[in-house]
Amino acid sequence: MSILLVFNRHPARFLAALEAEAPKCAVHVWPTDVDPSAIRYIVAWKPAVGIIERFTQTQVIFSYGAGVDHLLLDPGLPKGVPIVRLVEPDLTQRMSEYVLLHTLMHHRRMTEYLELQRQGRWHEHWEPVTQDVRVGVMGLGVLGRAAAEKLRMFGYRVAGWSRTRRAAEGVECYAGMDELDAFLARTEILIALLPDTPATRGIIDARLIGKLATNPDLPGPVLINAGRGRLHVETDVIEALNSGALYAASLDVFEAEPLPAASPLWQHPRVVITPHNASNSPPAGVARYVLEQIARHERGLPLANVVDPAHGY
Amino acid sequence: MSILLVFNRHPARFLAALEAEAPKCAVHVWPTDVDPSAIRYIVAWKPAVGIIERFTQTQVIFSYGAGVDHLLLDPGLPKGVPIVRLVEPDLTQRMSEYVLLHTLMHHRRMTEYLELQRQGRWHEHWEPVTQDVRVGVMGLGVLGRAAAEKLRMFGYRVAGWSRTRRAAEGVECYAGMDELDAFLARTEILIALLPDTPATRGIIDARLIGKLATNPDLPGPVLINAGRGRLHVETDVIEALNSGALYAASLDVFEAEPLPAASPLWQHPRVVITPHNASNSPPAGVARYVLEQIARHERGLPLANVVDPAHGY
Repeated sequence: MSILLVFNRHPARFLAALEAEAPKCAVHVWPTDVDPSAIRYIVAWKPAVGIIERFTQTQVIFSYGAGVDHLLLDPGLPKGVPIVRLVEPDLTQRMSEYVLLHTLMHHRRMTEYLELQRQGRWHEHWEPVTQDVRVGVMGLGVLGRAAAEKLRMFGYRVAGWSRTRRAAEGVECYAGMDELDAFLARTEILIALLPDTPATRGIIDARLIGKLATNPDLPGPVLINAGRGRLHVETDVIEALNSGALYAASLDVFEAEPLPAASPLWQHPRVVITPHNASNSPPAGVARYVLEQIARHERGLPLANVVDPAHGY
Repeated sequence: MSILLVFNRHPARFLAALEAEAPKCAVHVWPTDVDPSAIRYIVAWKPAVGIIERFTQTQVIFSYGAGVDHLLLDPGLPKGVPIVRLVEPDLTQRMSEYVLLHTLMHHRRMTEYLELQRQGRWHEHWEPVTQDVRVGVMGLGVLGRAAAEKLRMFGYRVAGWSRTRRAAEGVECYAGMDELDAFLARTEILIALLPDTPATRGIIDARLIGKLATNPDLPGPVLINAGRGRLHVETDVIEALNSGALYAASLDVFEAEPLPAASPLWQHPRVVITPHNASNSPPAGVARYVLEQIARHERGLPLANVVDPAHGY
């Protein structure tokens, strides 16, 4: 079997990991002059439009990250070829790290302490204790459920919202647009972990932000977006930060990436920016995941984590 | 029964909480002209030397914080009167918040990302995943054990060190000076939660820092001191940060507090400073704790969390 890697930059670490895990496997990296009909599997990360369709014998397309919006942008994607999302323990754990870190940062008012530190000022704020802080996770897929569970284990009061009803132990679960307002009305720190689909694009706008709750011991609501940049309306987020409708934000994803130099987000005193690395795909883990799924497929077993194109994730 | 509060500043919030919990109780705040022989219980926070000994009928002295070093400084403290440490669930949880927050901050290289953000630069570092990071907690009292447990639940590889042998589930426990080097040799992120005693003063010096381990995916070892400022030798910490023997530090406590304006720690790019508020005593919780212990004492039951003056905690 032959695997093709179609990445937006050379996947050196992943290629090395795949070759280490499966030394006998033929792995090609786009651009390549391999006979297109030899390729059975594609692993892709932000592929340029029109490449994947050249490989007409492809049986499975794997996304190198948790999201698949970067693949579904390609109108020529072959119909009927399954697309597999990445579900990998380290990827999940890294996202939980990001979520707990940034929740704690704003709950403990660290942007203010860091500013005081730069000014050489010794001054303390009163802060609520974990069990008095209400966190809400939008998106209860693998990453959202794991993050919600870690937050709850640590002591936060956690709710979740998703398109279709989900269950997670100890997490108050809301579903659908009918229950969104109730979810927001009890959420002081909002974590966005939704996929990027036509239904979620721009969902975090001024109206939604205006419905969030404020903890009595914090200056206002907090937004943490580690899902996709197109979930939020960036001008609305900036305006909410400036007006106080939002106290603070941690953003890992943006409408345009890298975040343009002119964006006022870079220098906003209550914003924490990371370069879309909340959860990096671990090369060895992805290699094992892809090879295991291929082995299952070749034994005639069903693939796991197949994308439903109708829903976009 | 009469309670006297001897604080280094007016304890308005605690006084209100005590009066709310026990409206019939006579509570006095130093300075006061109450008849000294009427006082049975003292709650103290950094009392000036020589005050407590004036109240000769005192039966129990309560510390308003987890540490009691601020009390034991007073050479006139009446012999034989029990001193009670504060053990309170919110106090314990706040310390776990601080420890997890600052461990995550340095593990995820946040001082570097915040610096990149100020420069408007989009650049990412590779970071290890939780289960590949080795954290060591020095001091396994109530606060240290709870923090170690939370770190372990979140997925870190956790060890603990204490003067006498302690056990904590899933935590590799080292004890005594004989095992300190072995503890340090496997510790990449060191959390100091020891009490301030003659045996612990200055224990975190250049020699100790030089024995810490470096995670292969981080630039060097990390120090997080949320115990007492006198545990570390500040000039050694600064030198280690400058030489790279330490990659980064979070410090909540200092040799002199407030941290003097001239300290180079304020502006060090890899140091995070908080104003000794890792874990603030919650007024209502302390009021309940003190009143419960008084009620037990008055029924002839033993007090909990009594300090052993020979060990200083």
